[in-house]
Amino acid sequence: MHTSLVAALDIGGTKIAGALVDLSGTLLVRAQRPTPAREGGDTVMRAVEAVLAELTASPLWAGVMAVGIGSAGPVDASTGTVSPVNVPGWRGFPLVARVSRKVGGLPVELVGDGVAMTAAEHWQGAARGYDNALCMVVSTGVGGGLVLNGALHTGPTGNAGHIGHISVDLDGDLCPCGARGCVERIASGPNIARRALEGGWVPGPDGDTSAAAVAAAARAGNPVAAASFERAAQALAAGIAATATLVEIDIAVIGGGVAGAGEVLFAPLRRALRDYATLSFVQRLTVAPALTGTDAGLVGAAAAATLAGHGGRPTVFSGRS
Amino acid sequence: MHTSLVAALDIGGTKIAGALVDLSGTLLVRAQRPTPAREGGDTVMRAVEAVLAELTASPLWAGVMAVGIGSAGPVDASTGTVSPVNVPGWRGFPLVARVSRKVGGLPVELVGDGVAMTAAEHWQGAARGYDNALCMVVSTGVGGGLVLNGALHTGPTGNAGHIGHISVDLDGDLCPCGARGCVERIASGPNIARRALEGGWVPGPDGDTSAAAVAAAARAGNPVAAASFERAAQALAAGIAATATLVEIDIAVIGGGVAGAGEVLFAPLRRALRDYATLSFVQRLTVAPALTGTDAGLVGAAAAATLAGHGGRPTVFSGRS
Repeated sequence: MHTSLVAALDIGGTKIAGALVDLSGTLLVRAQRPTPAREGGDTVMRAVEAVLAELTASPLWAGVMAVGIGSAGPVDASTGTVSPVNVPGWRGFPLVARVSRKVGGLPVELVGDGVAMTAAEHWQGAARGYDNALCMVVSTGVGGGLVLNGALHTGPTGNAGHIGHISVDLDGDLCPCGARGCVERIASGPNIARRALEGGWVPGPDGDTSAAAVAAAARAGNPVAAASFERAAQALAAGIAATATLVEIDIAVIGGGVAGAGEVLFAPLRRALRDYATLSFVQRLTVAPALTGTDAGLVGAAAAATLAGHGGRPTVFSGRS
Repeated sequence: MHTSLVAALDIGGTKIAGALVDLSGTLLVRAQRPTPAREGGDTVMRAVEAVLAELTASPLWAGVMAVGIGSAGPVDASTGTVSPVNVPGWRGFPLVARVSRKVGGLPVELVGDGVAMTAAEHWQGAARGYDNALCMVVSTGVGGGLVLNGALHTGPTGNAGHIGHISVDLDGDLCPCGARGCVERIASGPNIARRALEGGWVPGPDGDTSAAAVAAAARAGNPVAAASFERAAQALAAGIAATATLVEIDIAVIGGGVAGAGEVLFAPLRRALRDYATLSFVQRLTVAPALTGTDAGLVGAAAAATLAGHGGRPTVFSGRS
């Protein structure tokens, strides 16, 4: 009989996932719906409610103590609202209040998806045992989160660690966020593919122009494909070095689809880090691939659910963190 | 009769200052020596010992509970050593052990000078009342420190907040630190002056080529001088926006000689911040000039002396912070 469970929601532009999670981080009950991202805000909320309805219908629901939500950002934990870039129907949407209404007054904790992934990696992944860490997702976008002094650093609004939108090229290409030369504008999967195509890389007969296809070409010796990953690695290195120089971190953990390129990304990344992480106190910084997989958002949202009011230190999961 | 005092040391490339500081942050006894920066490490240490000897000779010394040191960086608080860039005789110099020997076992706390200035601004200056702040010195170099969640964030080695050496121009000019396009490489006083001269600015009859002279020329309508400050402001804005995007800060406080340029710097800085601080959770970020003056290093070192073992929250000074 489980008496200490957390309900977790992972809300992205493609799918809305939910789970009941136990103290060991095991997902006991799962539910999922596609995100009707192009629909109005209430339609999106109905998909969330459908996921919640499946969870609350479980006999295990009686053991749930709290709800954790990891959402595509920006979020605002101080007001309980979300404005995911890829869900235009939600702008300042009162997600926490709407979820609270469905869960009978259980505490509801909201964080950005980068913070949630970081909570998962710190609890169960490559950042375990590190008191100061940056965890990143490099995929369609670039997101992240921070562990400082042994605790998740969410920031007042739950958005801290947004490394994808720091500028490492102040005169560079305009980013959809409005700034120039953001890490994401150079290092995301679509930008790796775009740069390879612009450089003359020709995709294979299957027409696959994804970053994974560029990685395969680089592995097969294509210099344009390799150069596109090297440029992405340079931008990631500048951003990681900036983070280490600003807050002192011991490890940078990188997950997401682009990290699946393996040494095509990590080898030039380690080289470029030596160029940008120059001060004595950041030279020992290491880089590692993420260990948590597609469930990181749910596991991390569950971990985040236990943080409220405890200075960022998980209580429920403290024996494992 | 003072029974709760702190001894503070502020160690820079030009001077070594010391003071006995009371609970209100008032400097009661002062001592100072020039830094023999080109001499051997023991000669530099003798200057520190001469400052300490003046302080320990005071009848007020009996009330001293702790010693705080703010030093030019890099420092390593975890080992108690310092390696100031401008004091080549000190590389991994065991400053904490050497000071401890002279003060009879009082606790000795070491932080970088940017962290010390931040402690002073958070206690008595423009960052007072802010739980999340970046404080910077823009002068011959560019340094800084962070307040996160209401407490000084020193990092494990006492170097956090080194905003001068984050790269905002990853293909830019080589910085003496070894990286490229660092904030300091673009925004420090000497670089503002260099860029103005390279652009064709001609100094006045007094031959003054300082950043202050460039500021005066900009104020008088010289477009090259103004453009050099605008470029510095752009780099500072990119660095400040990166910091806000990474850790969530509400205010950036700027002190140091270059901040004395006033609106010649602050007006383009506020404009450039709108270009780089684009995400919703960083748009409310404000910028303000520092309020603490030349004593900030001593006041901040005194504040830092009270932090050890208290999670970054000053205890001695808690009624005033």
